[in-house]
Amino acid sequence: MTPEEFRANGHALIDWIAEYLGNVGSLAVQGKIEPGDIRAQLPEHPPAETEPFSNIVADLDNIVVPGLTHWQHPSFFAYFPSNVSYASILAELVTAGIGVQGMSWVTSPACTEVETLMLDWMHELLDLPPHFRSTSDTGGGVIQGSASEATLSSILAARFRATGGSINTDGDTTKLVAYATAQAHSSIEKGLRIAGIGTSQLRIVPHDERLAMRPEVLESLIAADRAAGLTPFWVCSTHGTTSSLAVDPTAEIGAIAGREGLWLHVDAAMAGIGALAPEFRWLNDGLEYADSYTTNPHKWMGINFDCNLFWTSDRTSLLGALSILPEYLRSRAAESGAALDYRDWQVPLGRRFRSLKLWLSLRTDGVAAPQEMIRRHVALTQELAGWVLEDSRFAIVAPHPLNLLCIALVDGDEATDALISRANESGEALFTRTVLDGKVALRFSIGGRTTYRQHVVAGWELLQKLASEL
Amino acid sequence: MTPEEFRANGHALIDWIAEYLGNVGSLAVQGKIEPGDIRAQLPEHPPAETEPFSNIVADLDNIVVPGLTHWQHPSFFAYFPSNVSYASILAELVTAGIGVQGMSWVTSPACTEVETLMLDWMHELLDLPPHFRSTSDTGGGVIQGSASEATLSSILAARFRATGGSINTDGDTTKLVAYATAQAHSSIEKGLRIAGIGTSQLRIVPHDERLAMRPEVLESLIAADRAAGLTPFWVCSTHGTTSSLAVDPTAEIGAIAGREGLWLHVDAAMAGIGALAPEFRWLNDGLEYADSYTTNPHKWMGINFDCNLFWTSDRTSLLGALSILPEYLRSRAAESGAALDYRDWQVPLGRRFRSLKLWLSLRTDGVAAPQEMIRRHVALTQELAGWVLEDSRFAIVAPHPLNLLCIALVDGDEATDALISRANESGEALFTRTVLDGKVALRFSIGGRTTYRQHVVAGWELLQKLASEL
Repeated sequence: MTPEEFRANGHALIDWIAEYLGNVGSLAVQGKIEPGDIRAQLPEHPPAETEPFSNIVADLDNIVVPGLTHWQHPSFFAYFPSNVSYASILAELVTAGIGVQGMSWVTSPACTEVETLMLDWMHELLDLPPHFRSTSDTGGGVIQGSASEATLSSILAARFRATGGSINTDGDTTKLVAYATAQAHSSIEKGLRIAGIGTSQLRIVPHDERLAMRPEVLESLIAADRAAGLTPFWVCSTHGTTSSLAVDPTAEIGAIAGREGLWLHVDAAMAGIGALAPEFRWLNDGLEYADSYTTNPHKWMGINFDCNLFWTSDRTSLLGALSILPEYLRSRAAESGAALDYRDWQVPLGRRFRSLKLWLSLRTDGVAAPQEMIRRHVALTQELAGWVLEDSRFAIVAPHPLNLLCIALVDGDEATDALISRANESGEALFTRTVLDGKVALRFSIGGRTTYRQHVVAGWELLQKLASEL
Repeated sequence: MTPEEFRANGHALIDWIAEYLGNVGSLAVQGKIEPGDIRAQLPEHPPAETEPFSNIVADLDNIVVPGLTHWQHPSFFAYFPSNVSYASILAELVTAGIGVQGMSWVTSPACTEVETLMLDWMHELLDLPPHFRSTSDTGGGVIQGSASEATLSSILAARFRATGGSINTDGDTTKLVAYATAQAHSSIEKGLRIAGIGTSQLRIVPHDERLAMRPEVLESLIAADRAAGLTPFWVCSTHGTTSSLAVDPTAEIGAIAGREGLWLHVDAAMAGIGALAPEFRWLNDGLEYADSYTTNPHKWMGINFDCNLFWTSDRTSLLGALSILPEYLRSRAAESGAALDYRDWQVPLGRRFRSLKLWLSLRTDGVAAPQEMIRRHVALTQELAGWVLEDSRFAIVAPHPLNLLCIALVDGDEATDALISRANESGEALFTRTVLDGKVALRFSIGGRTTYRQHVVAGWELLQKLASEL
């Protein structure tokens, strides 16, 4: 592709994206597709000859788009929001175009410095405790690819601190014990497993009727483990669990973790961004106790994936866990200590200039755009809850202070499962299923950038209509 | 940003990128920047009001671009190639615009199926052994973010297999032992450390004068470890080390690994893509023994970062290590076994539609474009080697069958270090430094998409001139 073709094709694709995003609401949220359907439409072998760009655009229209689950659809009520603002799309384009590596300060100073500044801007906009700020004595933040990676990083930092660094040499994880509830994200167990902390070393702390951790049980579990000669080292408190957006009592957990010397990680992947709106700053409760914190602009802020924010108040342990310095990566700037090398703050070495997404979005759309979106989603969820309460066939099965309503048919799990399947097969909306304390629930997650009242009304009316037909 | 503004701003940014890439050769490869210089030019606090898009473009021009190390500069001879083809930039734009998640087949079937097909296309184009193909009984491939993550995944799969899966429960890594040379990438030690395999469990296998592993020593180290009651479980063979592009003897290592039941991982992050050109298929020698293999289109193929390819012949162990299935991620397609869920092939949960980069590039530029580039780089490196041999002040300090020449001044390390510093300070070219068997070397890596003979000539003449001035 020549530079001239790049300009022409690029302009065409910009328009193609504008049309896709403008029309996505008229498509089925998820098409009727069976495994293998997409591949069957594509050539089994790579092309022997180059093709005109128009072929590709035609295949995007005719094969790829019908094969997507449309996360940008205004009636996408499944999983969690994963929105793309126009500004963040353009930032990703710039990132791809300049094609620099941000693994070290010296490999592109602007990539590192804009990132550090964006973490501090977000720190200020979210009103986080001072110990996470890059200008604090021992803290700082970094953009990672996903909350899974942030959680793994926190486990590794905690593992380093709990063993006085000896883990790097002896790899002995056998005495370490971690704590979380059954409502915590699957990446907790996966991250622990990766770090050599098996399921027998993960204590599932019971939760209360609000699906939140019971701190008094955490305390007794820690005591029992210590009495058994084990080393309690890490506890995860979730602010907004994936299944139901339950919020663990971080202040109480943090007081225990502080007394007992555990690393407290707070996973607010989806919900933490809500603190952009001052009325939801209760989402930060207890963060003054946290050793690490993570939330995702690529979920509820409209920034395209990937853009995870990870802060720690103990960068020494993080760097102790993740820093490796071979000869071919040495630099004067890094050795002087004046520059951050973000490769030492994450699992992979390479990294893109992802902070441009925040920079462009905060400058062109401002914080007002995500604030409006967050407030709209929460208000619609509360309004939806009111409608559900008026229909005696349905029950609300979890607290819903934010933008997720977990509901079930009073007829039981089979009916709820049938409702979810039929709703999703309609193509008119998409929901996901979860199980809360053994009971099947339909998750009605209101998180689309273009999701307004009429979409929620239509989604609810669809569920009511299908419930009548069961 | 409105859809109309997105179109206008998007067209402008496409042109901006075309101009950046068209003009990057006229910029200093790396500016004279001190830590803090970029941040000092930016507001310390987030903007209270939104700004016109033109402000951002102006800041890109005036603050960001001067703060970059220009990886797309034709005289960028540092680190490794990390090129961006026009087609791959446009694919990244589409990925960002449609904004879907590919964690499971059901979360966007096209994302998974195009990816599987692209792995098979690349498998065919690279002429890899059949046990890696997605249609084989036990193998398959996936796009990961980086070779670091691919290597970590292979360690985790190997750990699972060596312990019969008990690692997931008991987290006991204390008997496991891994093997690599001192020339292997830093991500080997980092990945092992993450997986709970400390440095005392990593045997550094000596290398020969070609910087390649000595398999007979590997064999005796394994025997000694077994005699000590330990469990040798993983060995890394590198095809193209970072420091010097040294190639380990994989067939011999593989025969030992096969006899001894070790997982053989072959790390060809940078060089493996060379096999796109049939004359460099020796890069695949021994892959028939490998349990896993990784190479990066985002290095030597011109595909923008991130696009790492990871294949395994034992997907059961990989899935055993990385699969977690909470209620909110269950789907009929996954449970039937008919669909791949790539979240179980990698560390993070979330993932972008990265295979579009390969799809667009292979269709619009064909395999001919990277083949031409690879051949050009190798030929230029051999020509450069001839010039160096004629200058008695310089020595070639490592084999150079591909596109990297490691050279040193015969006056010694201090002189070579001074040469590297002065060359880089000139802004006319950029090199990195390494240490090979205790001796400082300048790495002259010829890998730019737009790097032609005149750039290599100028880079060499710069080094000659500066050597005269030392």
